[in-house]
Parts: sequence; structure tokens; C-alpha cells
Amino acid sequence: MGPHPAVAAIRLAVRRVLHDILIEQHTDTEQHTVTEQHTGVEQRTGVGQQADRTNRERPRAPLVLVACSGGADSMALASALAFEAPKLGIRAGGITVDHGLQPGSDLRADDVVQRLRSLALDPVESVAVTVGRAGGPEAAARDARYAALDAAAERHGAAAVLLGHTRDDQAETVLLGLARGSGIRSLSGMAAVSGAGGRYRRPFLLLDRQTARKACLVQSLPVWDDPHNTDPSYTRSRLRHEGLPALEKALGRGVVEALARTAQLSRDDADALDSWAGQAESSVRDATGLLECAKLFALPPAVRRRILRRAAIEAGAPAGSLFARHIEEVDRLITGWRGQGAINLPGKVVAQRQGGRLVIRQG
Amino acid sequence: MGPHPAVAAIRLAVRRVLHDILIEQHTDTEQHTVTEQHTGVEQRTGVGQQADRTNRERPRAPLVLVACSGGADSMALASALAFEAPKLGIRAGGITVDHGLQPGSDLRADDVVQRLRSLALDPVESVAVTVGRAGGPEAAARDARYAALDAAAERHGAAAVLLGHTRDDQAETVLLGLARGSGIRSLSGMAAVSGAGGRYRRPFLLLDRQTARKACLVQSLPVWDDPHNTDPSYTRSRLRHEGLPALEKALGRGVVEALARTAQLSRDDADALDSWAGQAESSVRDATGLLECAKLFALPPAVRRRILRRAAIEAGAPAGSLFARHIEEVDRLITGWRGQGAINLPGKVVAQRQGGRLVIRQG
Repeated sequence: MGPHPAVAAIRLAVRRVLHDILIEQHTDTEQHTVTEQHTGVEQRTGVGQQADRTNRERPRAPLVLVACSGGADSMALASALAFEAPKLGIRAGGITVDHGLQPGSDLRADDVVQRLRSLALDPVESVAVTVGRAGGPEAAARDARYAALDAAAERHGAAAVLLGHTRDDQAETVLLGLARGSGIRSLSGMAAVSGAGGRYRRPFLLLDRQTARKACLVQSLPVWDDPHNTDPSYTRSRLRHEGLPALEKALGRGVVEALARTAQLSRDDADALDSWAGQAESSVRDATGLLECAKLFALPPAVRRRILRRAAIEAGAPAGSLFARHIEEVDRLITGWRGQGAINLPGKVVAQRQGGRLVIRQG
Repeated sequence: MGPHPAVAAIRLAVRRVLHDILIEQHTDTEQHTVTEQHTGVEQRTGVGQQADRTNRERPRAPLVLVACSGGADSMALASALAFEAPKLGIRAGGITVDHGLQPGSDLRADDVVQRLRSLALDPVESVAVTVGRAGGPEAAARDARYAALDAAAERHGAAAVLLGHTRDDQAETVLLGLARGSGIRSLSGMAAVSGAGGRYRRPFLLLDRQTARKACLVQSLPVWDDPHNTDPSYTRSRLRHEGLPALEKALGRGVVEALARTAQLSRDDADALDSWAGQAESSVRDATGLLECAKLFALPPAVRRRILRRAAIEAGAPAGSLFARHIEEVDRLITGWRGQGAINLPGKVVAQRQGGRLVIRQG
């Protein structure tokens, strides 16, 4: 008899991602081998020579870390990684981040470390961080967490860090993006692969939260429910416990799946339009590098506004403070020109039209 | 003292749209005049000759109709049209559609006719329709309504038909599109200008429902609340009274505005990508008109999938039954080719890969 369907599902999701990582590692190793052959070092060795190989010649098995809060999603992820990694010659480790936001969070982190060790993960580490205030409590905690995970990945030379975000998290992220009203990039949610060199992987992005929870239950894994997840002072928590259920009640049970699919489609669309804008940008600049209004006018609005946004950011406007309404106002210098004056953008950037050219610079 | 701010807001919104219509009419008339001059008919006449002008030589003032249910949004729209149209030399009329879905709906329609007449609209007409069942109750009612409005516009030679959809309606439409999970086109909501020749105009698309209701109140206009709007068996009604308020509670009061802005941005993005796909399509077909897989592979996924969708529809697949998952499966013939067989699409359309070409046709 095979494993419970929920356990099979989490393992399959992790196995796929580990395969991807191995293929990438293999490609890297091949490039490495080619380099060594060029320098005259012979990489391939017979069985009898095995003992003579140096660490440089025989790289250790790649290490994959799981970021684990002790909650159901990341505990399920840790259990699946522990099961699948050895079969593929991958070392599996775990990191838990102590955000220090509640009394006793250090004991909680120690507890998670023990649970990860009992899954035979190695290395396992708890990292304490100091959460700042920039961008609100959720953003500050996230920034601190990723900085700690980045550092841990570097320290251990990890090939990848697995994150337990599920399809439900993705749906929430899409709704949070929707609330910003800033276009399809903010609807594209979290990527399956992200971070420097594709460090972060989200194997559960198409898996629902219920499956992860069920997998913990049938494997008798203790899970810890972060009180932040039910704290109504957190936007995401309100969304999870009130907003999304009400939306499901109104629209039907497929809402979470529809939101996750919207994320993927929006990401592909945003990528395509960004690449178009990148290519078009050079064609609308004159010899001195200024943007020509007539050429901008001829572009589709979606492409033109992306070029304007890129130009504003390049001139020093902070991306996070640059809203759709700013870009629309700059766009009217091109589509609704009636001699209007300079437009002030965030970061002391000024946009104005001069002799058929658009000048965007820090003033 | 000027009018109440709510009344000023609805009038400004209507005035802008009437201006647009006049500019388009003017352009049409100029083209008309040129034609007549070519045939030797002198269009310009002195004051003394005025009596001799025929109807053909002196077109009547353009007619703009308002589609009015008697609810607050469309009653506000009717009142603003009645106020603004005469000042611009435009005739204002009204149509109410009797869907025949409730007992006494004919009396209700007569009542709306009286109200429109009391605003001095002329012509005013009630049109009874028979609502079918295709696509569910809401879609069937909408289809019947637009067919009746189209016919009325033709009959009266109307330049445009105004619709009372507000920003709140737009937000609901975006969420309904989101629930389909079929990409950014379905997030783009209702257009400000739509229908054959841009017949339908939505002056209130950036105005909130509360403003329309307030404008009726301060003008002492009686309004009728359609029981369908509060009937929880209608998806839109559930969304309006439960889904959207819960989302606002979780995400903040700006949600409706953010959804409306998402609609506009998504529409522009979808238009740009459709035009890209349209241009790219011819470059990926071989001499016999078949799609070349290698060339399709080189395109961004967002553009490639749009080309595949167009090809499937062209081959006979009904657009409404063609979902993202269908297109993804066809896409894997290009991005994940491992000798898989023909793929069945709605409308008995079959997609298969043959010798590096993609063949999509009704089988």
C-alpha cells in the first residue's frame, strides 16, 4: 500500500523541484568539468583512484534547505524533503527563523530545530533576527526573514531554499496585489522560482493548504499554528479568515484556484510586456538619449506607460512610491499635450515636455 | 449657488461623454459634407435659404438615449442627460426594458416611462423582451436587454446609448472575471465605450454608486430598487452584499477604486498583447499556413498562448468554452514535446504536432 494521497502529493511536489535542482546542478558541474579539462585537470577517475580525489575534484552532494516555521505547510515540506532528498543523493537541511516578536519565540525555535532533527535533516539551524518597522509589520518581518535565509544559504553553500507557500497563500497574495490597483505585475503573486540565482523554490504553490495539513496529520507530525495567522490586526490574516471565505461564498469554491491561475497568467503577461517595453525603449530615444514624444505616442498605451515608468525609476524615482496615477499624468504630456508644466514625481524626479522630447530627471 | 456636488459630478460625467459624441458626429458630418460636395450638392446655405433646406441637407440634432431601469444609477444618468443634452444641441431620449421576470414588471416599465417623460426626455419607450435561459439567468437577461437596446437605437437612429454602470459595478465585474481565472482580458471589466460603432457609453464608470444615489435624493427623483440586486441567488448580488464588503473590511476602503483601476490597466495590457499576437502570428506560419513549432517556441509564453488560442478559435472552437488549461495542453506540444498524441479541444477541434508543425483543425 502506498502512502496516504496527501503524503504522496507533497512528496511528488518536492521530488519535481529536487529534479529541477539536480538538472541545474548537473549543468553547472558540466561547465565546471569543461573548465577543469581546459586547465589540464582530469576529472574522471577510476574506482581505485577514488581515495585520492580531493574535495575540489569530487564536490559534496548538493544541499537543499527548507525554511520551516513549525506550521503545517513548512513541516509538511520538511517531511517531504527528508523523504525525497536521500533517494536523489541530495543532502537535506533546515532553517527556522526566530523573529523575536512574541515572548518565548526562542523556545519555539528550539522546538522546531528538534522536530527538524528528528526528521534526520542535517544541518539544522535556528537564526534569530531583529524585525524593523519599515513598510509595516508584515513587510518588516518578511525582509528580516529573507535576509536571514539568504545568509544561511550562503553560509551552508546551499543549492536552494524551499519555502512552504501554498496555493492558498498565492491566492491571498493576488488579492493583496489587487488591492493596490497597480496593474498586472502586482497580480502575479509569488514565483515558483525566485531570488538570486533562483535560490528560493516554492514546491507547494499549486497545492492547497488542506493537503499540507492532512499530510502532517497522517504522518503524526506536530504542527504549530502561528498566532499571527489568526491575528485580525494583520491584513493577510483578515483576508484569510474573512475576505477569502466571503468571496468563496459569493463566487464558488474555485476562487482560490482561479486566483492562483490568474497569478501565473499575469506573470507571463507582465514578463512579455516588460520585454516589449525594454526593446521599444531604445527605438523611441533620439541621438542624445531623450524620449521622442511622437514615437512614444505611436506605441500601445501599455507599452508606452511601462517605458515612462522605467525612465522615471532610472531617473531616481523609488519604484515603490511610483503609482499608476503618476505615470498617467506623465503620459498626458504625450497623449493630451496642451502646454502643461513640469510634473513632480516621487524622489524629486521631474518630468517635462520640451520641444517634442520628454525630459525626466532628478530636479 | 451651484448644484449639489453629487449632481455636479453626474452632470460633468455626462457632459464629457456628450462632448465626445459631438466631436465624433462632427467628424462624420464633415465626411458627409465632402461626399455631397463631390456629387455637386451645395451644403452651406444662407439664412434666407433656410426654409428650402431638405431633411437630407440639414440633419436633425443627434439623439442620445439613456437605458433606464428606474434604479438610482440610471435615473441619475437620465436626469443628467436631460439637463446637459439641450445645452449642446443634442436630443435626449430614454428606453426601459421590461424583462418580464416578475409579475407587474409591465406596470413598473410604464412607471419608468412616465418618470423619463417627466424629465422631458423624448422619445421615451418601453420595450418588452423574452429572457431565454442560455448561459444562466444573468447572462440571458443581459443578452435580451442588449438586443432590445440595439434594436431601439437602430429604430430611433440614435448616435449613442448611455448605460448607468458605476465604478462599483466595474469592481464587481472584475471580481467575477477573477473568479474565472482565465487571464487579464477577463479582469478588464466593462469598457467606457463598447458595442458596434461605439454605440454604448458608460459615463459613470469612474463614479461611485453612492454619488448616483445621492444625486437622485437631492433632486427628489424616485428610484426603484430591483429585487434582483438583493436576491442572493444571483452571483453579482452575493458579491455586492457579502463578498465585496468582506473584502473591503479585510483590505481597506480603497478596494473598489483599486479594482476599477485594475480593469483599465488590464484592458490596455490585454489590447497590447493581442496586437502583438496578431502581428506575430503571420511570422510563425510556414508557406502553407501551418504554425511552425520552433518559431512558436521562441516567442514569449504570453504571446505564444494567445496565438494558439486564436488558432483554436479560428478552427472552430467556441471562445467561451476554451479555457486556459486547454491552451496550456496545446502549448506543451511545443514546450514539452515527448511525442504526445492529438489533443481534443471544445467544438470538436483537434490539435496535433506533425513534423515540426502544429495542426489545429476540426476533426
